[in-house]
Amino acid sequence: MEGREVVLPTVFRVALCGGTHGNELSGVYLVRERLKRKRKVEEEDHIYVVTVMSNPRAVQQCRRYTETDLNRCFTHATLSGPVTDKTPYEIVRSQELNTLLGPKGSPEAMDLVCDLHNTTANMGLCLIAYSDCDWISLHIYRYLQARENNPHRDSLFWMHFLIRVDLPYSLDSVGKHGFAIEIGPQAHGVVRSNILSTMQEGVQHMLEWIHLFNSGTQFEGGKVDVYTMVKNVDYPRDFETRGITAAIHPQLQDRDFCLLRPNDPVFQTFSGETLKYKGTEPLYPFFINECASTAS
Amino acid sequence: MEGREVVLPTVFRVALCGGTHGNELSGVYLVRERLKRKRKVEEEDHIYVVTVMSNPRAVQQCRRYTETDLNRCFTHATLSGPVTDKTPYEIVRSQELNTLLGPKGSPEAMDLVCDLHNTTANMGLCLIAYSDCDWISLHIYRYLQARENNPHRDSLFWMHFLIRVDLPYSLDSVGKHGFAIEIGPQAHGVVRSNILSTMQEGVQHMLEWIHLFNSGTQFEGGKVDVYTMVKNVDYPRDFETRGITAAIHPQLQDRDFCLLRPNDPVFQTFSGETLKYKGTEPLYPFFINECASTAS
Repeated sequence: MEGREVVLPTVFRVALCGGTHGNELSGVYLVRERLKRKRKVEEEDHIYVVTVMSNPRAVQQCRRYTETDLNRCFTHATLSGPVTDKTPYEIVRSQELNTLLGPKGSPEAMDLVCDLHNTTANMGLCLIAYSDCDWISLHIYRYLQARENNPHRDSLFWMHFLIRVDLPYSLDSVGKHGFAIEIGPQAHGVVRSNILSTMQEGVQHMLEWIHLFNSGTQFEGGKVDVYTMVKNVDYPRDFETRGITAAIHPQLQDRDFCLLRPNDPVFQTFSGETLKYKGTEPLYPFFINECASTAS
Repeated sequence: MEGREVVLPTVFRVALCGGTHGNELSGVYLVRERLKRKRKVEEEDHIYVVTVMSNPRAVQQCRRYTETDLNRCFTHATLSGPVTDKTPYEIVRSQELNTLLGPKGSPEAMDLVCDLHNTTANMGLCLIAYSDCDWISLHIYRYLQARENNPHRDSLFWMHFLIRVDLPYSLDSVGKHGFAIEIGPQAHGVVRSNILSTMQEGVQHMLEWIHLFNSGTQFEGGKVDVYTMVKNVDYPRDFETRGITAAIHPQLQDRDFCLLRPNDPVFQTFSGETLKYKGTEPLYPFFINECASTAS
């Protein structure tokens, strides 16, 4: 990129969403506190922020979702599907959110949608996006990394979610730019002060960058590390019952974004046997032991 | 107790229960593995063990419960109440379990009911009982502590759940003796190898002690530390919405069973203010930041 100057439109209309999964509480409380301070819509110089509680019913029940995972509903097909009395709540809600923040793919869509999540995995602060060449998002990431005295700079990651370009299904795909901020480890249904502070600082720095950018600040190019998702690895399962037969090996547990080499331990079966990584290529695992439950 | 010899009946019929809360997975997998090995009923010399998946519907959905908390159903009133088509599943199930393992308070009841739980709090391995003078349970606790090379000996606790003697409501109250084994920290819906191993070893040592006891081994008296529950401390809440307005203070988080002195930080409000412990008496907090969600 050196020497090449890119001029991009301002990022004026920003959506900040929490509670897309109702039991991931850092985003729920960050959004709730902003809304309490009457900041549902916040207009300052150069920036207009809409704060949204994405799935209020699931938040109320402290569950991931009530009928279907809201964060899988933002495909063009689901967003344009018919709605009847029997349509799951989350599909109805995805269409409401698409009206509020989109329509997805249209010129009216929000300039940036930032969706706040937690994970039970030890992933630090991780930005997750469908692209590895969205300059806006990558510059925000770089700004977060570069913040002086940032105690989290060694646990800041960019994860590129590789998926067919017409198929993004998550809420952040409604904006012209978008990413999820995923912070862990935190048990679902629990709020930890340190994790909430990390999220608050991340959001504050993101808004700072947008403010600077919209004010005409030029940002130098540079390099950032990007982790691209190449595959999901499921647990070993019983052939008949499909129940899992092993847990993450203690030597892998909590080592998200650390290099896993061929023959390193991956699983420990419930009978005590160690299962090793059989691939030939070193990989960086992430979302290690993320809560498998999709129902709670 | 020194010099006094107590002779107690054998502890022949033992129930080992997991999945009483369906998303506390160490007990679920420990029980499932035992059942897979055809050990639903296991009779060896001097001991007869029944292994039970307490709430199979909640386990299947990976939720704490489906309609009401099973582990609050074992009062005499609920166990003897009428059942109709509209009775919540867990109440029906509590009566089934009472038939299988009780009836509570009768001579036919199991000699010991051990119920396996997880907590998101950093409580190590904690035995929870309604009594602080049940010699059987206390000797098991002491045996677990004394195991040579026990890496968990510094994180082993006994918690005495102070409650009116006619009101115990948990599954372990169905046995003549009973306690819960509560192990954390582990997010609900997740299984961690180290936590599962700790539970497996705890159960194995418990069965070892029972075997020795039933074989006629005499055990010396001695002293153990017992933590008695004196009160629940709720989160600060918004007067109108009843939503929480603070998280556990970072200086208290994860410090279960560590002394909390007057004026030590307890909560950090979402606006950043520190709230201190206003009591006059030092206390040992536990179940710090246990998942507040009862619905998931």
